[in-house]
Amino acid sequence: MPPQTNTFTVNGRTYTPPPRPVVVCCLDGSADEYLDAALARGRMPNLQKMAVEGYRGLARGAMPSFTNVNNSSIVTGVPPCIHGIGGNYFYDTASGQEVMTNSAKFLRADTIFPAAARAGRRVAVITAKDKLRDIFAHGLIEKGGIAFSSEKANQARRDTHGLDNVEKLVGLPTPPIYSADASTYLFHAGVKLLEHNLTDFLYLSTTDFIQHKFLPEQPEALELYSAIDEQLGWLLKRGAVVGITADHGMNSKQKPDGSPNVIHLETELTKKYGPGFRVILPITDPYVVHHGALGSFAVVHLPSGTSARRKLHVLQFLNKLPGVTEVYGRNAAEKLELPADRLGDIVVISGRDVVLGRTPEYHDLKAIEGGLRSHGGRYEEMVPFVFSHPLKREYKARALADPRNFDVFDFTVNGLQL
Amino acid sequence: MPPQTNTFTVNGRTYTPPPRPVVVCCLDGSADEYLDAALARGRMPNLQKMAVEGYRGLARGAMPSFTNVNNSSIVTGVPPCIHGIGGNYFYDTASGQEVMTNSAKFLRADTIFPAAARAGRRVAVITAKDKLRDIFAHGLIEKGGIAFSSEKANQARRDTHGLDNVEKLVGLPTPPIYSADASTYLFHAGVKLLEHNLTDFLYLSTTDFIQHKFLPEQPEALELYSAIDEQLGWLLKRGAVVGITADHGMNSKQKPDGSPNVIHLETELTKKYGPGFRVILPITDPYVVHHGALGSFAVVHLPSGTSARRKLHVLQFLNKLPGVTEVYGRNAAEKLELPADRLGDIVVISGRDVVLGRTPEYHDLKAIEGGLRSHGGRYEEMVPFVFSHPLKREYKARALADPRNFDVFDFTVNGLQL
Repeated sequence: MPPQTNTFTVNGRTYTPPPRPVVVCCLDGSADEYLDAALARGRMPNLQKMAVEGYRGLARGAMPSFTNVNNSSIVTGVPPCIHGIGGNYFYDTASGQEVMTNSAKFLRADTIFPAAARAGRRVAVITAKDKLRDIFAHGLIEKGGIAFSSEKANQARRDTHGLDNVEKLVGLPTPPIYSADASTYLFHAGVKLLEHNLTDFLYLSTTDFIQHKFLPEQPEALELYSAIDEQLGWLLKRGAVVGITADHGMNSKQKPDGSPNVIHLETELTKKYGPGFRVILPITDPYVVHHGALGSFAVVHLPSGTSARRKLHVLQFLNKLPGVTEVYGRNAAEKLELPADRLGDIVVISGRDVVLGRTPEYHDLKAIEGGLRSHGGRYEEMVPFVFSHPLKREYKARALADPRNFDVFDFTVNGLQL
Repeated sequence: MPPQTNTFTVNGRTYTPPPRPVVVCCLDGSADEYLDAALARGRMPNLQKMAVEGYRGLARGAMPSFTNVNNSSIVTGVPPCIHGIGGNYFYDTASGQEVMTNSAKFLRADTIFPAAARAGRRVAVITAKDKLRDIFAHGLIEKGGIAFSSEKANQARRDTHGLDNVEKLVGLPTPPIYSADASTYLFHAGVKLLEHNLTDFLYLSTTDFIQHKFLPEQPEALELYSAIDEQLGWLLKRGAVVGITADHGMNSKQKPDGSPNVIHLETELTKKYGPGFRVILPITDPYVVHHGALGSFAVVHLPSGTSARRKLHVLQFLNKLPGVTEVYGRNAAEKLELPADRLGDIVVISGRDVVLGRTPEYHDLKAIEGGLRSHGGRYEEMVPFVFSHPLKREYKARALADPRNFDVFDFTVNGLQL
């Protein structure tokens, strides 16, 4: 059966897929410099072809520039204020618990996948980190879709993941999560699913272990992008329409001596105002080797009973800390498109080379001994936006007017001149 | 005489030039995407070689992301709070005049050029826009240096510019300022100066007419970067050590229908609070065809006698305007490294696709009928940072810790492994 072209609507956007396989890739942590470094060395000939014959530009991600926030935006097509996931991690004031958002129960908007499946598309979603699988799989398996992670490829079952025997299909064993293979594996799997006609609507979402650990020009990074490019070539050869973006960029966050450049917010606040402050670092996730929970975005919960005047004082104090670039009170929700009920009292954003922490004791810096590269702030907000085919006139105009990374399905499905 | 290697110190930085010609280029308005588009099409083989064999990364410019501000930073090696030029244009509260900053009299720090000349280097500075020449030439001509613009190449005289008969030397007539030739001309001139041994310490600063008018993938832009690359090849072939950066990036600032996406701040403020507000647009310069005086950075002077409470109200009002991303009071000087005495009361910065204007009547939109591309805000702050040779270990570390575009002379002169 050729790919179905029935129109479907999700979260106010209408999608009319072409009669060809559609593949959208989120290359986790892919600052544009990673593509540049690989392209300059001739390591991404297929991406180069896409850039010249299709489109290559930049799009703005959602803030904070974290994985769960942006992957949730990409798969729903809406900003965090609508889908509800404003961090990997938040403090639930109702329950008094700090919670991870790696579950579909936090999602307040549908992903586009069940609707695409209902419209007759054979949907498959493959992610590197298993933490995202639950969000992506929401409502999809019961519609006949496929969703698994390369991290737990060997645990995929037909009734829960839509597919058995992933290792056999791919012809490769489940890769370790702290590896480049965790990312390339899902491209291999995607190609196989396409070859076996098991999908014609595919979302691939990699992990940023390599980007946290290696600079764009280091061999490990070049190797990863070269491997991805090879699989891109296979996808294109099989007639796929391909769109590529990232969840966030990546910058070194260290001093010239190589030590991490951290502002410990809980320490600073306690020293100045006394105890009772709770600082939440929404980069926090189970993959601590990546970043030691240090990113460029933090949320502050004030001690209960803090007066409005004191709050203004705290805002001004934080704003004066060197390395802090933006501070928001309650207007954070509006200015940053975040869910107001899952934010704290104050949002703090730091500069290109600066991360925010709680206290020195809280962070295990062993994990980042080789140097700290991280994200979360404005300087990781702009990401690649690349398509296999030229943009239609209307989409070309939109690409000039602040396109977002979570427009990537709209652009790939509706926006390309085939 | 081979190039001299005497050490010299300017504004607290020490420079020890290599015994080779040193060339620093500021490619006006070169968002990294311009390099990407030309590189992907094989139009910049010499830059590609620099990226692979030398270094290619990004550096952060000075805010606001305007030409005079950043060129002044590059040639002094210090931020605007020290050199004093925080815009192309400011309101001098002492004299009650709105003034252009295209004169060395506004400069509060020495450029590195007279010191390099005193240390025995044959310094030449060539700019496209004549507006910058006076700043660059300050103290240089009397030290035997050369400084002229391609805009007024035919007006260069030995006593005022350090060189006669520029057209004859270059073999090309003075180009029109609204052209790609205005930029390529100075590369041709630089190569000739080098060939005739008239310089061994060269600064080339182009104009962004093409970037304001054309997208990275349009033939006009590709043609410009290809022409620049050809001259880069000649410079490298003559043994030059080359560093490249930009003063600012460039983004489309329009709605999907192609009309300019403007917030008229004076109109908004007057409607809300009554008359007396003065909005200064520090992008303003004599080259209106580029941008119609519309950029992503504005300064507000409040009516005299405005109370602190009212000022806070205005700050909050401005902060709530959709498209406004940052608002500062007096802390602008500290957070944005700007000269406090040449700022207004409030600084407003807008988003990637949004510009700030005074009133609809103030701006002649005829100049930008083809579409508005402009700069001034955060989304034009990151610029290319490319060197012909690999970085020394210490400079590699600094390149990971928030390098600035105004470090480009330091990196090129001191930081390369030759």
